[in-house]
Amino acid sequence: MPRDRASLIPILTNIATQLRIDSLRSTSEAGSGHPTSCCSAAEIMAALFFAEMRFDPKDPRNPEADRFVLSKGHAAPVLYAAWAEAGAFDRSELLKLRRIDSDLEGHPTPRLPFVDVATGSLGQGICAAIGIALNARRIKSDYRTSVLLGDGESAEGSVWEAGNVGSADKLDNLCGITDVNGLGQSRATMWDHDMEQFARRWRAVGWHAIVVDGHDLAAILDALDEARNTKGQPTMILARTIKGKGVSFVEGKDGWHGKAFKKGEELDRAIAELEKQFVQVPGGDAASWPSLIRKPAATPRPEATPKPMAAPAYRLGDQIATREAYGDAIAKLGDADPRVVALDADVKNSTFSDRFEKKFPDRFYQNFIAEQVMVGAAMGLAARGAIPFPSTFACFLSRAADFIRMAAISNVGVKLAGSHAGVSIGEDGPSQMALEDLAMCAAQPNFAVLYPCDAVSAERLVALMAYHPGPAYMRISRPKTAVIYSADETFTIGGLKVLRESNGDVATVIGGGVTVFEALKAHDELKASGMPIRVIDLYSVSPIDRDGLVAAARATGGHLITVEDHYPAGGIGDAVAAAVAGAGFTVHRLAVREIPRSGKPDELLDRYGISARHIVSAVRAVAGKTVGARR
Amino acid sequence: MPRDRASLIPILTNIATQLRIDSLRSTSEAGSGHPTSCCSAAEIMAALFFAEMRFDPKDPRNPEADRFVLSKGHAAPVLYAAWAEAGAFDRSELLKLRRIDSDLEGHPTPRLPFVDVATGSLGQGICAAIGIALNARRIKSDYRTSVLLGDGESAEGSVWEAGNVGSADKLDNLCGITDVNGLGQSRATMWDHDMEQFARRWRAVGWHAIVVDGHDLAAILDALDEARNTKGQPTMILARTIKGKGVSFVEGKDGWHGKAFKKGEELDRAIAELEKQFVQVPGGDAASWPSLIRKPAATPRPEATPKPMAAPAYRLGDQIATREAYGDAIAKLGDADPRVVALDADVKNSTFSDRFEKKFPDRFYQNFIAEQVMVGAAMGLAARGAIPFPSTFACFLSRAADFIRMAAISNVGVKLAGSHAGVSIGEDGPSQMALEDLAMCAAQPNFAVLYPCDAVSAERLVALMAYHPGPAYMRISRPKTAVIYSADETFTIGGLKVLRESNGDVATVIGGGVTVFEALKAHDELKASGMPIRVIDLYSVSPIDRDGLVAAARATGGHLITVEDHYPAGGIGDAVAAAVAGAGFTVHRLAVREIPRSGKPDELLDRYGISARHIVSAVRAVAGKTVGARR
Repeated sequence: MPRDRASLIPILTNIATQLRIDSLRSTSEAGSGHPTSCCSAAEIMAALFFAEMRFDPKDPRNPEADRFVLSKGHAAPVLYAAWAEAGAFDRSELLKLRRIDSDLEGHPTPRLPFVDVATGSLGQGICAAIGIALNARRIKSDYRTSVLLGDGESAEGSVWEAGNVGSADKLDNLCGITDVNGLGQSRATMWDHDMEQFARRWRAVGWHAIVVDGHDLAAILDALDEARNTKGQPTMILARTIKGKGVSFVEGKDGWHGKAFKKGEELDRAIAELEKQFVQVPGGDAASWPSLIRKPAATPRPEATPKPMAAPAYRLGDQIATREAYGDAIAKLGDADPRVVALDADVKNSTFSDRFEKKFPDRFYQNFIAEQVMVGAAMGLAARGAIPFPSTFACFLSRAADFIRMAAISNVGVKLAGSHAGVSIGEDGPSQMALEDLAMCAAQPNFAVLYPCDAVSAERLVALMAYHPGPAYMRISRPKTAVIYSADETFTIGGLKVLRESNGDVATVIGGGVTVFEALKAHDELKASGMPIRVIDLYSVSPIDRDGLVAAARATGGHLITVEDHYPAGGIGDAVAAAVAGAGFTVHRLAVREIPRSGKPDELLDRYGISARHIVSAVRAVAGKTVGARR
Repeated sequence: MPRDRASLIPILTNIATQLRIDSLRSTSEAGSGHPTSCCSAAEIMAALFFAEMRFDPKDPRNPEADRFVLSKGHAAPVLYAAWAEAGAFDRSELLKLRRIDSDLEGHPTPRLPFVDVATGSLGQGICAAIGIALNARRIKSDYRTSVLLGDGESAEGSVWEAGNVGSADKLDNLCGITDVNGLGQSRATMWDHDMEQFARRWRAVGWHAIVVDGHDLAAILDALDEARNTKGQPTMILARTIKGKGVSFVEGKDGWHGKAFKKGEELDRAIAELEKQFVQVPGGDAASWPSLIRKPAATPRPEATPKPMAAPAYRLGDQIATREAYGDAIAKLGDADPRVVALDADVKNSTFSDRFEKKFPDRFYQNFIAEQVMVGAAMGLAARGAIPFPSTFACFLSRAADFIRMAAISNVGVKLAGSHAGVSIGEDGPSQMALEDLAMCAAQPNFAVLYPCDAVSAERLVALMAYHPGPAYMRISRPKTAVIYSADETFTIGGLKVLRESNGDVATVIGGGVTVFEALKAHDELKASGMPIRVIDLYSVSPIDRDGLVAAARATGGHLITVEDHYPAGGIGDAVAAAVAGAGFTVHRLAVREIPRSGKPDELLDRYGISARHIVSAVRAVAGKTVGARR
């Protein structure tokens, strides 16, 4: 276990060469991939995995282990090679890269135990790394987080959101390395090899920046030492590298991005050149490499057991916005479970997440107006055992749509909440109205999508979503609404509530959130005129209670009407229609069918066709004939 | 028309005071809004509108007029006040702010002729301003673009994407002003009044940065002069301001964001204080203010008339990916119409937009890996008469989902194309597969969503989408597919093609893109076994040909099967189901129902249930009984 620099460097040199060979062989075998993007990072990976990081290759999820995030996810082969050389699995597995029967996918996903979050959408890994570093603080661990970025990736705004938050939060347990190989996919990057462009940006956002030759192992090790010893701010190591380094006929050449070497002469020539780069190291053969790795020092501490949460304290008829109930619920849940954390993007007084902050300032992470890093950091926190509740206006969650997509691919337990949904916000106008948020989240096959209409259901669903495996989204509303559920009412993810029913119901009206109250008003008016309706609160949009909906359809002449403060595509109407199609039922949809405008909430509900008046008309149109026939 | 500084400043002082008064009165009358965010910007607005900008208040859309974008859209009342004082409309209109019968909405939208793009989702206006500034270069106009940002807004990554692109493109016709009032919505901003934090960031991204007192009119005018005289880079004026400036009891106070003054004593007290700030200016009364404004000097030049585009040159059976046909089509269209421009995010060799770049390097805008500014700049270009085609991998368009939402609200003609849709991309894995892009775009009520399956339809639809009013999205695919349409085939937005039909069809299978070919394979197999099916190419997902679908359903026993390389929610299945629901038909949906993984395209189509084999099974299951009965 040689730790002195002089004996270490030749070994790391050979490891880097082996990582290059593995990356070339695996991508050539697969017939696709990004070998040249691996070659530029080989020394960085060798240094990180075999001299810097403290981890156990056989127990990659150890809570005290240092973390590594490959933000430039297309360099997956070199990541897999590093774990193989570290002893996590047999090197022969590498040749199954990108095959349908292998978890060594084209870009890393948490199907692999050593991957915390899926990467491959550039600019996201560093946001997740912010959350992973925050988690170390939460569990009072000294584990460090390293994240490898590409230079092309540095054009993504999310990288700079992470930069700002990392310095504001003084994350000195976080070290970024940018692999500045100068070439993007289709051309030179914005800044090519001008290292000063990178350094001045990272210094401007408050990071300690170190420029090194990314193929000089001594320089990399020095920089990692310097990063570890830098306090009060994160460090970014800017490594000047050459794309395709080690294979002379592709080094620094455009047109080689995402291209595997052809098996046969082309690959053989490259491998032969690489093999010549092995140096003589007595006792430094590949079998000894795993012994270089430092194991986590500390024994994992189990997290405190969650306590049960008291029943909601609301009384029937109280007027409370679900956003306020949400804020109170996460604060209450924070008491019950120390893993619960909350993240904000400077709207905590609108989402009421400030109720959580007041009680748990250390578990509340302010990202300012930067939704991408808010969701990305939540992904990192979730991957490391926290239960994160990031929230903002629902419309601004669409700023993080690609992060939501990657949270789904990562299958991490991010618990999103979006407030101010729909036209019911009123005067602020369309830019502040989420009318596609259900579509965005419900499109992801593993997302739970919840939509409470009152404070009791909001509180109960917050607790349910916290412990639901995987990602979840709760849509919450701006206006105050009446509490309609008693404190002992029970809810399930995938459930619904039938709020009004009688034997003579002529149709079923299915609402969510504010439209539940429009449906109840319509019920009263229709009942008075002898046309009672069934009213359903579809508080769980996905998964959805197919059986409950089909039963209601069967009991009410097959007349299903949905009403939602959302555009028609991808919302409640589509979800209900998809659920009942197999039983042969169709759905009549009331939804917001044009870009709305400013106005009072009630004016807008009515103008856009989702008020009680429109429900009454729809019921009369859909079920009128049936009723006439019955009479 | 006093132009000397000494006589101008007292007038601008009074204008600023009037803008404050107007902002307070209008928000108090509305009962909501952001008066304090207006007060901090009053001098900036007075200087821009009455001393700097060249425009005609009665002809705000003049192509040669200087442009102003209010990136901090919540300060809408001061924007409206400035246009009213400039003479665009009567000041009394301001008191209709936020009313359903007024276009003076809570946040600006292009319902107003002087608004280019809707703002209110922070960090977007500056991206649009990039496009507006690029457009000046395109039409060889010397108009200048000014954009006012908030300091809180500066945390958005998109701001820094715009920063990088603005300096890379050397946009010296662009001037940003950041209103650094130190307070966000819920607390102090990340950097409070530390002006150096802002200056070093803007200098790092290559802008000329000037720090001024944002209430010192002489300093603002000097800075605007300096910006105008700065060549080779854009300028950012960093204006230190006080939120609520002018009203002593709210100045710099937290808790006043987004709060209107209460009508009565509170408002009266504020107005009285502001009125005392008017200074004596002989002949400088409000009626004279519009005369200060410089009109556009140049006469607008009409843009060249588009030429007709030749018919596609593909032959039936040619194997061409729709992404390649897309690239060739925009290049061909670029020849026919000089307004056509293309934008890339470093994947031009995957989307084939490099074909356009080769022919029209001056109309090709490289944004590097920064999808938000790519779409935002396209919004600005579209608002100023260009026909922009921004393209990238479809999955990475979700990075710009909030910009797509605002493009819909703005109703600007952004023509998006997303390549590499679905599992048919193969080995790169789920992070590179768009499976929710149709849902994202079709959710917006005014988006045209197109999905060609072959090169001929791709080329024809590119031309159609270019001239379709409003935003549009085209989904294009990675694999090569056979040309199935002859060059003289005609297409319409809102149309479909029936590819196979017979009198005995037992079901209709509706596909899009790659699944059209799976449906055709299924057709051949089923036909051979005596179960012919109707096959529809749904190349226009939104708008959708309801009548065509209903006719097919009626002709094929009511059996509709959709098959799509997309998640089930919000895609082709839901669109078809919504269209035919009114006629009483339901839809059987084949779609990708779980997070996919890496593998070969054909393996994945089959594994996720959307291959010919699954279509055959679905047809047998859905229509089997009917057929049995017929026999």
